[in-house]
Formats: sequence, structure tokens, C-alpha cells
Amino acid sequence: MNAPLDELLEFLRFPSISTEKAHADHVFECGSWLSLKLREFGLRSELRETAGHPIVLARNVHQPGRPTIMIYGHYDVQPVDPLELWRTPPFEPVVADGIITARGATDNKGQIMAHIQGVRATLERAGDLPVNLIFLIEGEEEIGSPHLETFLAAHRDELACDLVAISDTGMVAPGVPTLTYGLRGVAALELKVTGPSSDLHSGIFGGAVANPITALARILSTLHDASGKVAAPGFYEGVEEIEPWEREAWAALPLGDAELLAVTGAPELAGEAGYTALERTWARPTAELNGIGGGYQGPGTKTVIPSEAFAKITCRLVPGQRPDHVMEKLRDHLQAQCPRGVRLEMKGGHAGLPYLTDPHSSAGKAAQRALERTFGKPTALIREGGSIPIVQAFKDVLGAETLLLGLALPDCHAHAPNETFPVENFEAGMRLNQALLEELAVG
Amino acid sequence: MNAPLDELLEFLRFPSISTEKAHADHVFECGSWLSLKLREFGLRSELRETAGHPIVLARNVHQPGRPTIMIYGHYDVQPVDPLELWRTPPFEPVVADGIITARGATDNKGQIMAHIQGVRATLERAGDLPVNLIFLIEGEEEIGSPHLETFLAAHRDELACDLVAISDTGMVAPGVPTLTYGLRGVAALELKVTGPSSDLHSGIFGGAVANPITALARILSTLHDASGKVAAPGFYEGVEEIEPWEREAWAALPLGDAELLAVTGAPELAGEAGYTALERTWARPTAELNGIGGGYQGPGTKTVIPSEAFAKITCRLVPGQRPDHVMEKLRDHLQAQCPRGVRLEMKGGHAGLPYLTDPHSSAGKAAQRALERTFGKPTALIREGGSIPIVQAFKDVLGAETLLLGLALPDCHAHAPNETFPVENFEAGMRLNQALLEELAVG
Repeated sequence: MNAPLDELLEFLRFPSISTEKAHADHVFECGSWLSLKLREFGLRSELRETAGHPIVLARNVHQPGRPTIMIYGHYDVQPVDPLELWRTPPFEPVVADGIITARGATDNKGQIMAHIQGVRATLERAGDLPVNLIFLIEGEEEIGSPHLETFLAAHRDELACDLVAISDTGMVAPGVPTLTYGLRGVAALELKVTGPSSDLHSGIFGGAVANPITALARILSTLHDASGKVAAPGFYEGVEEIEPWEREAWAALPLGDAELLAVTGAPELAGEAGYTALERTWARPTAELNGIGGGYQGPGTKTVIPSEAFAKITCRLVPGQRPDHVMEKLRDHLQAQCPRGVRLEMKGGHAGLPYLTDPHSSAGKAAQRALERTFGKPTALIREGGSIPIVQAFKDVLGAETLLLGLALPDCHAHAPNETFPVENFEAGMRLNQALLEELAVG
Repeated sequence: MNAPLDELLEFLRFPSISTEKAHADHVFECGSWLSLKLREFGLRSELRETAGHPIVLARNVHQPGRPTIMIYGHYDVQPVDPLELWRTPPFEPVVADGIITARGATDNKGQIMAHIQGVRATLERAGDLPVNLIFLIEGEEEIGSPHLETFLAAHRDELACDLVAISDTGMVAPGVPTLTYGLRGVAALELKVTGPSSDLHSGIFGGAVANPITALARILSTLHDASGKVAAPGFYEGVEEIEPWEREAWAALPLGDAELLAVTGAPELAGEAGYTALERTWARPTAELNGIGGGYQGPGTKTVIPSEAFAKITCRLVPGQRPDHVMEKLRDHLQAQCPRGVRLEMKGGHAGLPYLTDPHSSAGKAAQRALERTFGKPTALIREGGSIPIVQAFKDVLGAETLLLGLALPDCHAHAPNETFPVENFEAGMRLNQALLEELAVG
């Protein structure tokens, strides 16, 4: 059998981009490979159909009297564009100076493979695991897990568990064990502004009609007020304020403005007034423009008034907000900003609820012990800005809380060119999996 | 020899897109073909080098005592994207129901070929032309004629002429002879907003840093005020107001809001308050967004904060404005709007002065007689919204005024998909050329 790192590199070679139809076969091949791999390591594993990409479902032989732990992960990855910014091809993983570079290295192939290799090591050493284990590894996380909740509901008994563990979040700094107890939700909205029925010569017609790009810019400029707050009335309705102990704990973390500046490479930090950058990313809602396009984007000049222009928005939501409510407020606000002479159409996209759990529960304490055994330091208790909508589904459908034991570093470039994962973190993840199952077994 | 229409179709098959480096060979081949064609018709013709695409220069044998007329045109064309909106391939010309469809059909291959075929007909019929003629047909008009002024200056004696005639403008309606005595100038500006050093995960980092698309939208939203005026202080400095006789004459033209609405297919007309749509397009300056791009533009969602976003602006200028002055005012204004957390860089592009001449000069009257002989109706005296920057160069370098005898219709889709030119206008152009040279010969 191959060494753990070689298994990961093989996993990373599949271009399993779930959002692009052209890659559907690659997603399927990646899931098939993974299922066979889990079988090779001694688990019962199957590739289970959904209405979209399949789910890899694996388990050991369950025995009464042991807690049942589900480890969730995903084998699909984000798109790779802008491709020209990658220093090495995204699906030809490279290991140099202890760093693995490839699309999916950290999000989520590196982290889920660390758990798989931890389980493999325990099975090789002890012949069994200390708990009843379920691996649920899906292929649609990056498109909002559209079929997972249905799958959970349809297989509720088979998937019954006491706890879900996920490594798809970050560590606050290298070597600092981190337990994430809160996530932001997400809601997507796409805007299309339409003006003339075809592109027009901007000399001949410029001045006679409204320009869709100009109109779109005017609409989007009202998304935030001058203080950086989202300006849609009602957007903040119900938002739960950050607890005083959280503000205090987060301020003491080795992750401040200097670190965020270095990781992002931005000229300066910016955002909603009255909150630190960490508070803004972990516990405040946002409306971010993920993409915009319209008219001529090639080299040189083309003097057109384009027929249409579009923009893609995703909001991050915090406890107390619901995607449907927030999107309604946002649509109402944006529609009211549409200038005359153009039409604005909007369509919603994927959505997920925010999540918050108690890091001081007995499972939370077991996770902290496992993290401290692995890294030899006290655990940082944090929230995170990203969204894992299915965490809410685990709670709603299976009644299970979720623990998020992240292994990603802030500079791993998840969702961006040159995504990385340190070999050191991959190996720590293997040890963490073994410690976690042991600590959860004793409760 | 081929029929005139066949010659035009052959001309239209060259994808002579001057702004795209990939098409440089096609531009050259098109110019070479055209020069040989002029020689075939009995003119002395050469392909003359410039630092960019070559110029086709042709003449009859000049004789003392006759006026020297230059007919200017261009054999380069605009890019074709969005290609998917073309009903037939842009460089495979189709003639159906008396309409020629192809990129360049109206702008400018159809119109310049009408002149060439008019000259050919006169030469075939009479053996000589009634004037000394120079054809100057360049390959860089669509990129702002960067090398033409240098060429004029270097060959001032050879190119000396009494008048320049151009057919690269429009008719106010089918069958209505139109003399254009004013053009808008142009000035281009490209904006790039840079934030984080690479694309960031908008969940993990959303809220910590400024989003370049959001910043760009906020900057661009300040380009105009609520009344539709360009908001950059000083932008309108020196702008010459429209003469009362012009407002009156234009209001009487068969080209009003209903026609503009039908041609543009816009939901409604819009623009600067206090002016009719015709006045706004012919005699008021504008700032139009020709393109915008940033972040993820593919299908579905990609949750990124992009590293950068860009926009392309061109301004149309009117008599009294100078491109350098206007661009300075625009840059100052936009730079002052740049929010914190991002950097704004701007770079200028091609530029051209506005033009205004007297339609009641003796050459102007000769042109009106030729137009009326061709179309059998009184001439509409108009300005136009487009820019032909070299008209100013003809005046500055050669001391020659320019007459613009347009053959394009408002619905010819110049610069847009499915560009057309009626066969009827092509044939009228051939007759117009013959009448024009005759009328100019008698003065």
C-alpha cells in the first residue's frame, strides 16, 4: 500500500470541480476512487447516488455501547480560474519545502484524507476503532450541498450518530489547536441589468440611452453605506451580538490585524465600523461582490454601450439571520435603486443557515483534549467566517451537534490560485483523528 | 471583372480586426488585396508602411487646374464579440432581402467600396475623373488612427488636397441625403482597482478587507450625477452650446425619440436633463462605460473576493473640449472617489478632437447638390455622435476641411453583432461618388 502522502497526491489529481458541468465525470471518478480506497483500508464503503454528484459512505462494523461518530468531508473542489495565476498546474500536485500545492490541498481533500489515514493507522495497529464510525464524504459542498439534506432525511436510521466531526475550517496560527464553534451562513444573488436590445455604438448612441454598466454600478454602490454597513433596510434584523467573552478571547488570539494584512496582501484592512477585522469576518454579516461582467473586456478599446451587465453577490449570515429573509430585504433594496432606462432582474442561488454550538459541552471538551494531545497547546475557541450549511442539516435531521477541528492555515489560499496545505498539518491531522476517536470513546 | 457587389463581399471576408494582435496578418492581407483592386480599376495604388497597419494610397494622374479631392476610408473593422449573438458568421457575408450582413458591412467597407466602385464606373465610362483624386484608406481607424497624423505630416506635399470627403457616418433615415458637419471627439480611460494580493475566500475573509468590485462600483457610481450629467468638476468647461438654428433643424428631422427607441431597443431613452436625445448624442459630451470585469464570471457561484476589477470608459467630446483637459478632470474626480483599502490605477487610451465645419461653404454646397442629385430630396444638415479623430488632423496638417456624406442607416448595427448595409445604399453610394466629383469639379 502507498504512503499516506502519496494517497493524498493521487486524490488531488482528480479535477473534481463540482460547479462546472464539463467536470462531472471527473467528480464521479474522484468519488469512485475514494470509495475503493476506503474499502482497501478495511471499511465497508459504497458510492451512493444522489440527484447530483454521488456521496461516499463508509463505516466500520458498529458495536453496541460505543458512541457513533460521523466524520464529514467533501471530495469536490472550487474552480481554478484565474488559471494564469497558478505557479504550477492546479491538478498536478507539487510538494516542496514541506508544502503541498494543488486545488483542494486544504479545502478539503488534504483535511479529509488526514482523517482517513488516521483511521487506516488505527485499523492497521489495533484491528478496530474505539468508536462506531461513519465517513460521509460528499461531492457537492462547493455548490452548497444541494442534495445532502435529502440524503440525510432518506437515510436517517442508517446515518444516526451522536456527533459529527469535520475538518474543513482553519487554525488561528501554525501549531495552535483550534476548535470552531460557530460558522456564518450564506445566501447568493445574481443581478442582471438589461438596456438596449443589442450592443450599441457608444459614439452614435451615447447620450440617448441608459448604459447597463453605469446603471449596475449605481445599483451596487448602494449595497453598503459610508460606514461599511450593508445598506439594505432590514438586513441586520435579528442579528445576535457578539458575546463579551468572545470579544475578549478573540482579542487575545495570535491572529490580529498584522496577520490578516500579511495573509490577504491588501493595502489595508477595511469593513464595518465598530468591530475588529476578526469580529467582522467571524460574527458579522456581509454582502460581497464575487464577480461582475459586461461589455468589452478584451485588449484595447471597443466603443460599445453593452446590452447587458451582471454581478454575483454572496452574503454571509450570522446567528439570528435567515437566508430567505435577508435575500428578500436585499432584493427589495436593490430593485428600488434601479435607475430608469434599464431593467434589473435578480435570481437567488445557494443558501445555508449560520451555526453556533457550545464549545463547553462534553463532546466539546473531548475535542479540546484531543486537540491539546495533538498539538501540545491550549485550544483556541473561535468562530469562522466561512459557511458549511450542512452543519445545520446534521442538527435538524440527525439531531447531532457538529465539532469543527480545523487544520487549514490562514495562508492556505482556499478558493484561490496556488492553494496549499503543509505536510506537517496533514500529519497532525492523522494524529488528531486517532486522539479524537479515543477521547470521544471515553466521553 | 467582378460586379461591384461581389467586390464588396470579397472585401468583407477579411477579418481585418485592427485591435486584436491575432488578426494582424488578416489586416495586412486585406490592405494588400484592396491596393491591388484599386490598381486593377486603373489607379496608381500602393500599400504604404506605417509603424502599425499599412495605409492604402491610390490616385489618378493629377492635372493642373483641377481641384484635388481626397476620399478617406478605412479597411479595418471592430471586434466581433459577443460572437454568439451573430445570426450568421461575421466574416461570411450574406445578402438577403436587399441587406448585406457582415462585420464591416457599413463601417466602413461598404461605404468606402461604394466610392471605389463609383470611381471605377467613371473611369470605365469616361476614361478619367473630373478631379484630381487621392484615395487614402487606412487600417487603424477602429483603434484611433495612431499613425495617420504622422503619415500625413511626413507626406504633406504628396497628400496636399483642397478637400477631404468621407463616407463613414449615417443618414437620418432611409433615402434622406445627409451632410454631417460636426463630430464628437473621443478620449479613453481604463480603471483598475486592486485590493488583496490574490483572490480570497469571501467566507473566510469577507468583512476584513475592501472588495475591489464593490470599490469600483462605488467609484463608477460617481461618474454621473442624478440628472445624468457627468459629475467630474470641470468636465463641461468650454463646452459650446448648441446653436438655436440647429435645435430647430434637428427637431424637424424624421429622427425623433420613437425612431431612436426602435433602433436601440432600450426600454426608454435616458440621459442628461434639458436636451433631446438627438441633441445629447450629437452635441453633448458623455462618459460611457464600454466594459467592466472582475472576479468570477462563469456559471454558478464562486465565493471569492477578487484581487482586482477593471472598467473601460470612453468619453465623447464636443467643440470647446480637449481630450487631455477632460481626461485630467475625470482622473482627478475618480481618484478622489477611491475608497480606502484598495488602489486605483488609471491609464489613458486613444483620443481625438471634436470637429465642426461650415455646411454652407462652397464645397458644402457642392456636396449638398451631389446628395440631392443622388437621392432626389433636400439634404439634412446634422452633426453626429461618433468620432473620426483624423478629420481634425486633415485640417491641422493638410489645411483641408472635411465633408461627411454618410450612407449608414441608424439600424445598421455598426460596432455590434449582425452589422448590416442595404444594397440600395451601396448603389446610391456609387452614384453619389460620381455626382460629388462632378459637382466639386465645377466648384
